[in-house]
Amino acid sequence: MSKEKTSLGFKRSILAQSQQEKTTQTLQQTLFDLVDLALQGKQAHWNVVGAHFRSVHLQLDEIIDSLREASDEVAERIATLGVSPEGRSAAVAEHTRLEAYPAGGQSTAATVSNFADRLASTIQGLRQAIETVGELDPISEDLLIGVSASLEKHLWMLQAQED
Amino acid sequence: MSKEKTSLGFKRSILAQSQQEKTTQTLQQTLFDLVDLALQGKQAHWNVVGAHFRSVHLQLDEIIDSLREASDEVAERIATLGVSPEGRSAAVAEHTRLEAYPAGGQSTAATVSNFADRLASTIQGLRQAIETVGELDPISEDLLIGVSASLEKHLWMLQAQED
Amino acid sequence: MSKEKTSLGFKRSILAQSQQEKTTQTLQQTLFDLVDLALQGKQAHWNVVGAHFRSVHLQLDEIIDSLREASDEVAERIATLGVSPEGRSAAVAEHTRLEAYPAGGQSTAATVSNFADRLASTIQGLRQAIETVGELDPISEDLLIGVSASLEKHLWMLQAQED
Amino acid sequence: MSKEKTSLGFKRSILAQSQQEKTTQTLQQTLFDLVDLALQGKQAHWNVVGAHFRSVHLQLDEIIDSLREASDEVAERIATLGVSPEGRSAAVAEHTRLEAYPAGGQSTAATVSNFADRLASTIQGLRQAIETVGELDPISEDLLIGVSASLEKHLWMLQAQED
Amino acid sequence: MSKEKTSLGFKRSILAQSQQEKTTQTLQQTLFDLVDLALQGKQAHWNVVGAHFRSVHLQLDEIIDSLREASDEVAERIATLGVSPEGRSAAVAEHTRLEAYPAGGQSTAATVSNFADRLASTIQGLRQAIETVGELDPISEDLLIGVSASLEKHLWMLQAQED
Amino acid sequence: MSKEKTSLGFKRSILAQSQQEKTTQTLQQTLFDLVDLALQGKQAHWNVVGAHFRSVHLQLDEIIDSLREASDEVAERIATLGVSPEGRSAAVAEHTRLEAYPAGGQSTAATVSNFADRLASTIQGLRQAIETVGELDPISEDLLIGVSASLEKHLWMLQAQED
Amino acid sequence: MSKEKTSLGFKRSILAQSQQEKTTQTLQQTLFDLVDLALQGKQAHWNVVGAHFRSVHLQLDEIIDSLREASDEVAERIATLGVSPEGRSAAVAEHTRLEAYPAGGQSTAATVSNFADRLASTIQGLRQAIETVGELDPISEDLLIGVSASLEKHLWMLQAQED
Amino acid sequence: MSKEKTSLGFKRSILAQSQQEKTTQTLQQTLFDLVDLALQGKQAHWNVVGAHFRSVHLQLDEIIDSLREASDEVAERIATLGVSPEGRSAAVAEHTRLEAYPAGGQSTAATVSNFADRLASTIQGLRQAIETVGELDPISEDLLIGVSASLEKHLWMLQAQED
Amino acid sequence: MSKEKTSLGFKRSILAQSQQEKTTQTLQQTLFDLVDLALQGKQAHWNVVGAHFRSVHLQLDEIIDSLREASDEVAERIATLGVSPEGRSAAVAEHTRLEAYPAGGQSTAATVSNFADRLASTIQGLRQAIETVGELDPISEDLLIGVSASLEKHLWMLQAQED
Amino acid sequence: MSKEKTSLGFKRSILAQSQQEKTTQTLQQTLFDLVDLALQGKQAHWNVVGAHFRSVHLQLDEIIDSLREASDEVAERIATLGVSPEGRSAAVAEHTRLEAYPAGGQSTAATVSNFADRLASTIQGLRQAIETVGELDPISEDLLIGVSASLEKHLWMLQAQED
Amino acid sequence: MSKEKTSLGFKRSILAQSQQEKTTQTLQQTLFDLVDLALQGKQAHWNVVGAHFRSVHLQLDEIIDSLREASDEVAERIATLGVSPEGRSAAVAEHTRLEAYPAGGQSTAATVSNFADRLASTIQGLRQAIETVGELDPISEDLLIGVSASLEKHLWMLQAQED
Amino acid sequence: MSKEKTSLGFKRSILAQSQQEKTTQTLQQTLFDLVDLALQGKQAHWNVVGAHFRSVHLQLDEIIDSLREASDEVAERIATLGVSPEGRSAAVAEHTRLEAYPAGGQSTAATVSNFADRLASTIQGLRQAIETVGELDPISEDLLIGVSASLEKHLWMLQAQED
Repeated sequence: MSKEKTSLGFKRSILAQSQQEKTTQTLQQTLFDLVDLALQGKQAHWNVVGAHFRSVHLQLDEIIDSLREASDEVAERIATLGVSPEGRSAAVAEHTRLEAYPAGGQSTAATVSNFADRLASTIQGLRQAIETVGELDPISEDLLIGVSASLEKHLWMLQAQED
Repeated sequence: MSKEKTSLGFKRSILAQSQQEKTTQTLQQTLFDLVDLALQGKQAHWNVVGAHFRSVHLQLDEIIDSLREASDEVAERIATLGVSPEGRSAAVAEHTRLEAYPAGGQSTAATVSNFADRLASTIQGLRQAIETVGELDPISEDLLIGVSASLEKHLWMLQAQED
Repeated sequence: MSKEKTSLGFKRSILAQSQQEKTTQTLQQTLFDLVDLALQGKQAHWNVVGAHFRSVHLQLDEIIDSLREASDEVAERIATLGVSPEGRSAAVAEHTRLEAYPAGGQSTAATVSNFADRLASTIQGLRQAIETVGELDPISEDLLIGVSASLEKHLWMLQAQED
Repeated sequence: MSKEKTSLGFKRSILAQSQQEKTTQTLQQTLFDLVDLALQGKQAHWNVVGAHFRSVHLQLDEIIDSLREASDEVAERIATLGVSPEGRSAAVAEHTRLEAYPAGGQSTAATVSNFADRLASTIQGLRQAIETVGELDPISEDLLIGVSASLEKHLWMLQAQED
Repeated sequence: MSKEKTSLGFKRSILAQSQQEKTTQTLQQTLFDLVDLALQGKQAHWNVVGAHFRSVHLQLDEIIDSLREASDEVAERIATLGVSPEGRSAAVAEHTRLEAYPAGGQSTAATVSNFADRLASTIQGLRQAIETVGELDPISEDLLIGVSASLEKHLWMLQAQED
Repeated sequence: MSKEKTSLGFKRSILAQSQQEKTTQTLQQTLFDLVDLALQGKQAHWNVVGAHFRSVHLQLDEIIDSLREASDEVAERIATLGVSPEGRSAAVAEHTRLEAYPAGGQSTAATVSNFADRLASTIQGLRQAIETVGELDPISEDLLIGVSASLEKHLWMLQAQED
Repeated sequence: MSKEKTSLGFKRSILAQSQQEKTTQTLQQTLFDLVDLALQGKQAHWNVVGAHFRSVHLQLDEIIDSLREASDEVAERIATLGVSPEGRSAAVAEHTRLEAYPAGGQSTAATVSNFADRLASTIQGLRQAIETVGELDPISEDLLIGVSASLEKHLWMLQAQED
Repeated sequence: MSKEKTSLGFKRSILAQSQQEKTTQTLQQTLFDLVDLALQGKQAHWNVVGAHFRSVHLQLDEIIDSLREASDEVAERIATLGVSPEGRSAAVAEHTRLEAYPAGGQSTAATVSNFADRLASTIQGLRQAIETVGELDPISEDLLIGVSASLEKHLWMLQAQED
Repeated sequence: MSKEKTSLGFKRSILAQSQQEKTTQTLQQTLFDLVDLALQGKQAHWNVVGAHFRSVHLQLDEIIDSLREASDEVAERIATLGVSPEGRSAAVAEHTRLEAYPAGGQSTAATVSNFADRLASTIQGLRQAIETVGELDPISEDLLIGVSASLEKHLWMLQAQED
Repeated sequence: MSKEKTSLGFKRSILAQSQQEKTTQTLQQTLFDLVDLALQGKQAHWNVVGAHFRSVHLQLDEIIDSLREASDEVAERIATLGVSPEGRSAAVAEHTRLEAYPAGGQSTAATVSNFADRLASTIQGLRQAIETVGELDPISEDLLIGVSASLEKHLWMLQAQED
Repeated sequence: MSKEKTSLGFKRSILAQSQQEKTTQTLQQTLFDLVDLALQGKQAHWNVVGAHFRSVHLQLDEIIDSLREASDEVAERIATLGVSPEGRSAAVAEHTRLEAYPAGGQSTAATVSNFADRLASTIQGLRQAIETVGELDPISEDLLIGVSASLEKHLWMLQAQED
Repeated sequence: MSKEKTSLGFKRSILAQSQQEKTTQTLQQTLFDLVDLALQGKQAHWNVVGAHFRSVHLQLDEIIDSLREASDEVAERIATLGVSPEGRSAAVAEHTRLEAYPAGGQSTAATVSNFADRLASTIQGLRQAIETVGELDPISEDLLIGVSASLEKHLWMLQAQED
């Protein structure tokens, strides 16, 4: 356990300097995607219209709960590793890798399709992050696997609704 | 009850056209502030350090719960009035009236002071919104009064901690 | 606080005679609509058929819960003001301002449309009642604003399902 | 299991045509009484005055809960058998076999006696219905036995209060 | 109460020898159907695809809960009567009276229709079993009536979704 | 519904005079057995010793819960039918049909065997009572079937422990 | 800690022989009163009639809960001290020090008065027992003080209802 | 939002100086009445005797819960506005506007009547306070309307018990 | 058990006349202190300011809960012994033995110190009361020991915060 | 993320074709074992007899809960990867790798031993599956590790009971 | 209340110097036994094998819960009296009065016997401690009586399992 | 799956002999640290004094809960692998790798720093153990990763409080 102070000023560092930097950069990029996807989820939750409104409206809130819990865990892992996490709106808007969600009311079919696309992109990013941190920090890897497993199951339940 | 289709495509409109426009514009500006403040709250929750860490860390999560519930109610009121609510990251970053939260780790004192300033700004915006919609729609006015009452109590409990 | 006996025989009357009469008449008409709409809701809940059966079946029960709670509050407000509330089947059938619900099995689309029309009528009546009692009794006004806010949100979630 | 379509349009019919008709007619008459008695219960709940007010007020709500649950079960049994249940206010007012509840405020003694009479009538109707459906459909018979058992116990606890 | 040892080795037998044999044979056949239908339900739950995916996916799990509880009660009733219940996969596959569920992914419409057919067959078997044991053991009859009542209601809610 | 006063002084009698007498006598004898068996259960619960102590100690309390609930239901059914139920210690000791439980500490094997014998006697009495009231009052019959079903299942779980 | 075997066959005895005998005899007499009073409480609960029926009916069940919990604790304390507790119906009927409860239906006033008398007798017995065991075993004394405190509070709430 | 320090030393004041003073004075007077009425309620709860003892005893505790919650909300609103709330026993005794509660045991009828009188006075005070703060601070007005609505309902349920 | 009527009019007195007087006087003085300390606790809860605000604010509410529960138990013990308890604001203000709490906003350090002093005084009074009633009534002694144990633990957790 | 349609018809495939095939085949074989073991568990739960009946009966239900949850997770993982899971009775009977459970009543010792053998076989299969998928899909590997960890703990608690 | 500083640095001491020393020494010795017995309990919980494994395994965890709660209360009582409690592993190992628990796997019979012996020793120590502190501090005496009552009941339930 | 008997006498061994030995030795060393750290945590919880007393006092109990749960899981994993776990006080005192916690009262700052140091040492040991067992048993590796993730998060929340 390294004894030099971390950037958040902690006296005890869990990882060595080089592992810490690469791990937290990877986690930070994941954090941008997760926070942005939660905001897109609320946008979708509020703007969906059509015959399956109620079912999609409720399902989105369950996914948003998973996303918010995930972003909290990822950000607190960054802090646990001694680095400052970033989740402010301008930074999220700038660094997210997700395509913007379309404006205005959306039919249930378009909502399912649009959100599933962005959920799939987020999972793709998570898969890469798992590979990267897998060689640096097994705890962070385990955390990201848990997040991805949960989102992949949501993806199934979303895309099982497409014709 | 007006019978022309609303912008979300609803057949039944609760308010007349002119009332609806001004009411939902006011609610939309409030929504930008509330979503941004919740993101700033998480930023503060993750980046606080110092002797009162635990207490401030927990208190911020209570405020964030209030803010998320409030933004959901305001956005769904906009939809109830037949208009599409907007809460995507780029739009929030562009339209928020709040000063950006400082980057990096913050002491507990700085955290309390910075967040209290932004909470006060949000309340100021709510007070103006209450006046505006008070003459257009008593239901929306009642909703905003409830939101402001809750945030003002949080403001007390935050600034009572300043020396 | 007036000291003459109310029609329920109470010794203390909260409102003056003239305020009390107009307020309770307005509340009584609202009560007829709310009790009738709850009965129509059960009728719809039992008679809906078609592909969205389960979702509409469950949603109607949530609206019925709101309606029953609202009618209880309105009736007990009438009693609080010293007047006997009326909610028997024959009186409800005679005085309701709502169009009768169609007989027999109904498709989910027809169920949503029929019930949304009657819900919109009830909200229209509530909006007028809020204006009327607003000048007579702020407690009753506040109660009706709460009822209307809840029903307007249900209306959104119903009509968001119409094509 | 008969294969002709039922009046609600179902493809699979649990009972043969003749059993189904007589069973659902008997259940429908029971439904009218149960819905009407629940409305009378609320009327009594709102209009009772006098020394034991609070106790009777609360006891009525417990009986109303039993009645609402019972009417839901009976109506859904009718639908299960493929026939459209009827519970709209005008139909209830026309077909109920119960004597109308008296108008205006009622003393606790009168409330207990009036409501016990109507509860006894409802039980009498249920006893006849049990005999009728006992030879047609054991599932419906079992359901009505459960309803009657619950209402007979309420009758005991009501009439144990009469002098 | 007979005193000869039962096939499970119990010293006290609730039914006479002949009643016991016929009753437990009837219950055993019912058990085969119920265990098989629960397995088919899971198969359907995992393989459904299409626009109503989420609603059907959830509804099937509620039916499976009823089926598992029912098979547990029936099997324990057989054991209570002193006979060994049989529920192993090969025996279930051999003795079930239900048509096999189709392989692979199924649309929501096909899922509803296929499962409703098998649910109707199970109910038909239960109706016959009720008649058979009705003359041998009122406790077992009562148990089967409860099981059938629950499954018949599920059948209504399934087939109300067919066009 | 008969209108002569019952022995508890009620104005409304659910059964005719002759049905009521035979039904309540049968229920009363059942009540004596159930109250006595619950007392024997506590005696056993307190006096069991040996290697399976803990398991038998806990199992007896579950059976006692069933017995107390059952005796409450039977006694309140007698009262519902307008007759005074009897459950005082001297009357129970005189009228119980159960053999007395042996005094002092008992091994777990003796406890299981002794209590199973008395539970079997109680079930035998219930079976006869079901036949008797089956022709007089279907509600009481249904209640006793439920009681017997529960006790028979407990008997299985007790005697499955005997070698 | 004495090493001779207790009458329940335990190898470790918490009290010396002479303390154990007197303590358990005193606890046993208390147990007879508590079990008998619980039976009288159920008798009263089932046989009360009159205007305050509901209130007294519910209050008795709360007292019975206290009595059953108390008798369980006292009996298990006897067993803890290595002696066999006695609670069978014939022994209770013979050894109880309480006057028998009157037969048949009782008015609410008579019920309250009769039961308060027996509750007061039980408390008197407990007071004597507390003095006796106070010099022998502080754990048993503490247990009886807890029981008496609870019953004395019930006595207050019962006799506060007498005129 | 004014920037001068409040009397509790806060840096941000929600209301202007003159509005703040009048609003908090009005809230403070209400606070004296509410704290005093809660103490009177406990006095009544402990000293009531007579036939309906139990029912009134329980009802008073429900009212006390409402009063304690209300006084907490009012006091914290005063602090939110930057002013020190006052609730010590001597100050309450000096400034309460309520008539003192009579000493010693009180019959249930006297208890109901005495407490209803003081509850009515409190409501009268609240009504005036609502008018005063209605022009100064809508959040405080809304809070007081909520308090009054709750107390008026309690008043109804109390005085409905008077002959 | 004495048979002369107590001052609350009860027919059965648990203690002899002389024991009862001294016991209830001692309990009454304790009641004055406990009610006053709860009011001081709320005063402190509302007026605390400074860095540890939130922690002290919450801790005080936990102590107040203990105090309110304790005063309820003590007052009901007085009533159980047949004497009228006294807890009105003027009597509390006159008879409390506690020093008045200082007016206006208080720092967290002053709040902790001031409240710990008054809590220590209350415990001193309780210690004397335990001695006094120890020779008169073991049930009351036990109740006061429980109250003191709880308050002493709160004292520890308060004064452990002083520098 | 591959874009060719999966066998369940999904548009987005999480794994490449070759990884997907081998992963889902391995998961499918695990699914057969898990579903069969749950059926064997119920068989054992119903057919166990002997002195430890109750303990083994309850323990088996806890293992069955783990098995059912595991089979649901494994099957839904297969579907998430776009392939149709198979769990019908005939397929399970054909493909399970577990030895058949013996017919008829089994002593507790035989039950523990027989079931522990089959549980050990299932774990052996899981261990191999973990190795296989470990190189193909970390999410599936993680899922199987969790399943095996839970079953291994159950195995300990079962075989700790063998002599 | 003494005013000299305690060894934990508190300004207010509840007991006089000499009482405090003897009381806390006695409590500290009890604390060593309780902490050690909880560790032995876990050792037994992990190392038990044999036919009653599950029952003993669960029962030990219930005893451990009691022991942990007891050691926390005793340690916090020491702190409340102003003295530093000691519970570190080396100190516990040195000062415990209990015989060491045997190493390795233990049969259920040996586990019950070994643990009952050590539980009996702990109770013996508690009995002496009760006598010692009984003359120094009634609050501590009451605490130890509660602890011993709970452990004596556990002893009964353990040794009732020995042959 | 090896068939030779394990040291706890189990017939089925999950790991091969050599894997089992190294894995359980590593787990056993972790167990010593975890049990010792939990005892140190209680020592700290009881002996902390100073300004943030309450916050640190509560936070330590949350960490202790995590540690106790972790030591239970690790010990039961050792037993699952067929080896006897060791957790007795003398063995823990001898084998723990943690520096002893300082004696007597500790300020909050010293408490946080001392406990964070020992928590960091424990994590360091866990990190090494994860590497060691990662090549022997993926289930044990997964368990240790979960334990370390939880303790690392606690470390963040502790050291974020240091200046």
